[in-house]
Amino acid sequence: MLLDRIEKANDIKKIEAKDYPQLAQEIRQFLIEKISVTGGHLGPNLGTVELTMALHLAFNLPTDKIIWDVGHQSYTHKLLSGRKDGFDTLRQFGGMSGFPKRKESDFDVFDTGHSSTSISAGMGIALARDMKGQDFNVISVIGDGALTGGMAYEAMNNAGKMETNFIIVLNDNNMSISENVGGMSKYLNDIRTTDGYLGLKEGVYNALIGKPVGQKVISGIRKVKSSVKQLMIPGMLFEELGLTYLGPVDGHDIQAMVKAFEEAKRTDKAVLVHVITEKGKGYLPAQKHPARFHGTAPFDVETGVPLSKTKPSYTDIFSTVMCKLGQRNENVVAVTAAMPDGTGLKRFHNMYPDRFFDVGIAEPHAVTFAAGLASQGMLPVVAVYSSFLQRAYDQILHDVCLQNLPVVFAIDRAGLVGSDGETHQGIFDFTYLTGIPNMTVMAPKNLWELSDMMKFALSLDAPAAVRYPRGEAYDGLEEHRSPMELGKGEWIVTEGELALLAIGSMVKEAVQVRELLAKKGIQARIFNARFAKPIDEEAVLLARKECRWIVTMEENVATGGYGEKVLDCLNRNGNQSGVLTIALPDTYVEHGNVELLKRELGVDPEGIVQRILEYIGYEGTVGCDTCE
Amino acid sequence: MLLDRIEKANDIKKIEAKDYPQLAQEIRQFLIEKISVTGGHLGPNLGTVELTMALHLAFNLPTDKIIWDVGHQSYTHKLLSGRKDGFDTLRQFGGMSGFPKRKESDFDVFDTGHSSTSISAGMGIALARDMKGQDFNVISVIGDGALTGGMAYEAMNNAGKMETNFIIVLNDNNMSISENVGGMSKYLNDIRTTDGYLGLKEGVYNALIGKPVGQKVISGIRKVKSSVKQLMIPGMLFEELGLTYLGPVDGHDIQAMVKAFEEAKRTDKAVLVHVITEKGKGYLPAQKHPARFHGTAPFDVETGVPLSKTKPSYTDIFSTVMCKLGQRNENVVAVTAAMPDGTGLKRFHNMYPDRFFDVGIAEPHAVTFAAGLASQGMLPVVAVYSSFLQRAYDQILHDVCLQNLPVVFAIDRAGLVGSDGETHQGIFDFTYLTGIPNMTVMAPKNLWELSDMMKFALSLDAPAAVRYPRGEAYDGLEEHRSPMELGKGEWIVTEGELALLAIGSMVKEAVQVRELLAKKGIQARIFNARFAKPIDEEAVLLARKECRWIVTMEENVATGGYGEKVLDCLNRNGNQSGVLTIALPDTYVEHGNVELLKRELGVDPEGIVQRILEYIGYEGTVGCDTCE
Repeated sequence: MLLDRIEKANDIKKIEAKDYPQLAQEIRQFLIEKISVTGGHLGPNLGTVELTMALHLAFNLPTDKIIWDVGHQSYTHKLLSGRKDGFDTLRQFGGMSGFPKRKESDFDVFDTGHSSTSISAGMGIALARDMKGQDFNVISVIGDGALTGGMAYEAMNNAGKMETNFIIVLNDNNMSISENVGGMSKYLNDIRTTDGYLGLKEGVYNALIGKPVGQKVISGIRKVKSSVKQLMIPGMLFEELGLTYLGPVDGHDIQAMVKAFEEAKRTDKAVLVHVITEKGKGYLPAQKHPARFHGTAPFDVETGVPLSKTKPSYTDIFSTVMCKLGQRNENVVAVTAAMPDGTGLKRFHNMYPDRFFDVGIAEPHAVTFAAGLASQGMLPVVAVYSSFLQRAYDQILHDVCLQNLPVVFAIDRAGLVGSDGETHQGIFDFTYLTGIPNMTVMAPKNLWELSDMMKFALSLDAPAAVRYPRGEAYDGLEEHRSPMELGKGEWIVTEGELALLAIGSMVKEAVQVRELLAKKGIQARIFNARFAKPIDEEAVLLARKECRWIVTMEENVATGGYGEKVLDCLNRNGNQSGVLTIALPDTYVEHGNVELLKRELGVDPEGIVQRILEYIGYEGTVGCDTCE
Repeated sequence: MLLDRIEKANDIKKIEAKDYPQLAQEIRQFLIEKISVTGGHLGPNLGTVELTMALHLAFNLPTDKIIWDVGHQSYTHKLLSGRKDGFDTLRQFGGMSGFPKRKESDFDVFDTGHSSTSISAGMGIALARDMKGQDFNVISVIGDGALTGGMAYEAMNNAGKMETNFIIVLNDNNMSISENVGGMSKYLNDIRTTDGYLGLKEGVYNALIGKPVGQKVISGIRKVKSSVKQLMIPGMLFEELGLTYLGPVDGHDIQAMVKAFEEAKRTDKAVLVHVITEKGKGYLPAQKHPARFHGTAPFDVETGVPLSKTKPSYTDIFSTVMCKLGQRNENVVAVTAAMPDGTGLKRFHNMYPDRFFDVGIAEPHAVTFAAGLASQGMLPVVAVYSSFLQRAYDQILHDVCLQNLPVVFAIDRAGLVGSDGETHQGIFDFTYLTGIPNMTVMAPKNLWELSDMMKFALSLDAPAAVRYPRGEAYDGLEEHRSPMELGKGEWIVTEGELALLAIGSMVKEAVQVRELLAKKGIQARIFNARFAKPIDEEAVLLARKECRWIVTMEENVATGGYGEKVLDCLNRNGNQSGVLTIALPDTYVEHGNVELLKRELGVDPEGIVQRILEYIGYEGTVGCDTCE
């Protein structure tokens, strides 16, 4: 095994060039085997094996700095920089992250997770290098999917005026997670599919300079800046922005890439190396089903079939609801930012192709585009992950809510998401959304309530958000399905001297907490809050009046969350507080199994019970006098 | 006066073509006179007089829909759509807005204020039109400055695949507020400055088709999609994104523009009409000082000199501090998003040109670029307006704070900004910033404290934000200048049974409130909170212990603000609340003089005193028993 010789960083430089294909093959095998056990981003990593090898060969790491856009394609980089052992604990609590982490390795230069940040960060690093009089290369590796994000364009627009070396590697596989969209994608495809482009441009040039009239034209063209470039260079769109373009290069030909990178190093400005790769390369199931193998649960290597069959997720429920809503009302349209599969909108897309819009990794545009649709009487549902919606905070505030337009946000992956870790936890949306005027913010307790809330949201004729967690949908409490009413929750259990005011995913936990408390002789009532904005003040005041203790429960950071709104309500109404607010702490939460994370953070049922017992001063018997 | 004949919408269509120049001249005169009295965005409006006239002539308003990007250039549009009288109350409380407002007129189709939203919104409107089977034109008018914003690119990337008419008018004046930056700007400049471009491209084409070898090449080119376009069309960058490009057109030649718009109407896809205008045209002071006349206070028409000389603003203080900080530490760098003048960084730019970065209207890039700089040991200060920083919420959370990088945010225009109104009020930053882990959030009480806070922020080696209001810097309380300490405020007045816990601009009001209360025999102590995160819990608990009443005061919405943090602190520490939280209500706040707005919202000193008297149950004598 050649791979046995890759133990620490730069070991790859000891491998002979003739053996590169075999090493690539072994790396692929390694990744497939490991990810089949742990789960992880398989497709993107299979596509970038040779690219990463070429980078590690052409550059001097960690002195030279590679920034991986999004970062889910950094597995081979981790492997080649001495982290082979980490793959046994990949994405697990306390184990190796699936994304670049500065605290994990000196070879990880800049933490990533969300799309389209790498050119901005790399540009900052390159200019800092110059100001500090240092000498190293900076390389930002960005996918064509990430180029649909406006930030990447903002950065290229600035990089175009750099007068120092900065290398952008465009990893072009014609894919975002699903198929890539838009004009830029089509443009890149034109370059990719043009055989003999190099030959052609020489032909044109020769045709021109060979003739007298041609000669005159050529000189005219030279006078007109960039026109020769337009004629001669496939990446002229990038050239027009001021970048030097090199390529396209075969992203599975290591020596061709090394040559291109050496060429790129010699440039005194920002240079874009266009590398063509194939997502999922070397593993047939991943090539055939790129979206499914973009990020995958553990699977059978032979067949590619996932190992465990899970119960329906909230995403599945949303998927079904959207199809029904689309059927009932032809004004309902769906918008996604490159997540037709992840958000469950694929079925809606199949049923109503004309009312479905995948805008690319472009959350800001998605939201304002939806506002435009809504201003003309359409009912757009923007389906997006909680952490990615952060990208569109201003568009929600400035374009949707200011005009009080009926855009519905279906916010998936809200709360703790697990193995993707810090960058993907959806634990801030209550905070940033409830601060916005005109916004209604909801979270369902179970799968039926998600359905009810979506219908209710669309009936409001105003901005509304429904947030729900990743994974299995809670199918308990089916018998509790009181009609939705703005700013009204529902009492699940009405007796008890302790009130659990829980919202969204925490209602399920409240049921468990109640059972655990009952064993200690403490009777708790349960309130399903439903609304983080506007909150049900009547219920809060009733709880204060009738209960000795109040506990709020939410899967969001405490600041700006549901608990603080309860405190504010009590305060404004002249009540004492004395509330135990259970929420997530004011920190980023690492990767790991959600149950483990909850335990670690003290927001699992047992941890919550423990905190409740402290709060009420429980010492084996119920009740005390020191709990206020 | 031709202008007398413009009373209602479409009256311009009754004007003879030969009289257009005179009407344009009269409109310019009207705008100069009116804005010289009210203040407003003069430069952008002088530049778009003919463009707006051409739009009103070529299109059928309000059936056809114009979306004005940013919207500050919509004055002529307002004038031509029957709102001439509104200019006497322009930007005043209860008067006409300086931006498009749907609630103001049917001719205002989509509210704008922040940059780069118009293509997204227009695309939504155009596609909604088709789905509803309607028939009208949609026109988004966007400046070249707004094209530096990534959202505009995200939208163009999507518009490129539209199969229906949608018109983008690029109002290109080579300016943002100040000079425009980046590769796109240079690209547009190349088009603008190329005389005889049309002639040239024909020359090339003729040269090619006239010769046998040329003929062969031409067919080769046709095979390679877009290469002929590259050769023939100046706007080929837009063409590559899938847009049809028309232009460039002289933006002061009405009939040429009308012709171009008629051509654009006939296109079955998204079409970009490139119009070249001159900012400030027709008024020499505005042409000479485009940044100053972009948005101006009342001025003398003859000389262009502002009518009132104001005391130093917080921006002025920040400007001076930055120069000093730059001198003391060569790692200090400054980043602005197209606001070198507005943020006061111009002096820093002059002194340290190599450490100053204007990235265009690109807040997301600005913040992540700063994170890149900070990751290499630089100390970036990102100076930005509060409402515009909303654009970079995710970048602050995901790129700066997650890695705990020492990026300092100097947040100008925080709190109520006045005449720009709803879209520009900086009243959400406490909420969205304090919810982010690792972030420190401060607000100074006066001009000296701004200086101290900036120094302190740079010393933290962690993310920090300092927010301060628009306008005159408070120069009271000079004698109170205790050293800055993380999470510690200062007591300004230590005696009194009522505690005013005030932050930032509200400390000045607390002084006034205290005086008014004293007249009623109520003694109030004053605490300058300094930190919205982490708050000074010790001071809060001291106030609870020693005072009968606590009042928090902040210029931010209540949700997620300082007051709620005080409630949370009291609750967590087992204290009663009974706090009066003075903050801004959960609504968008319209345009108008800040003092008037505060009075309207009950957050002026008199209004606050009134609410305090109610809170403490004041009935002519101090004290009561019902205030908890």
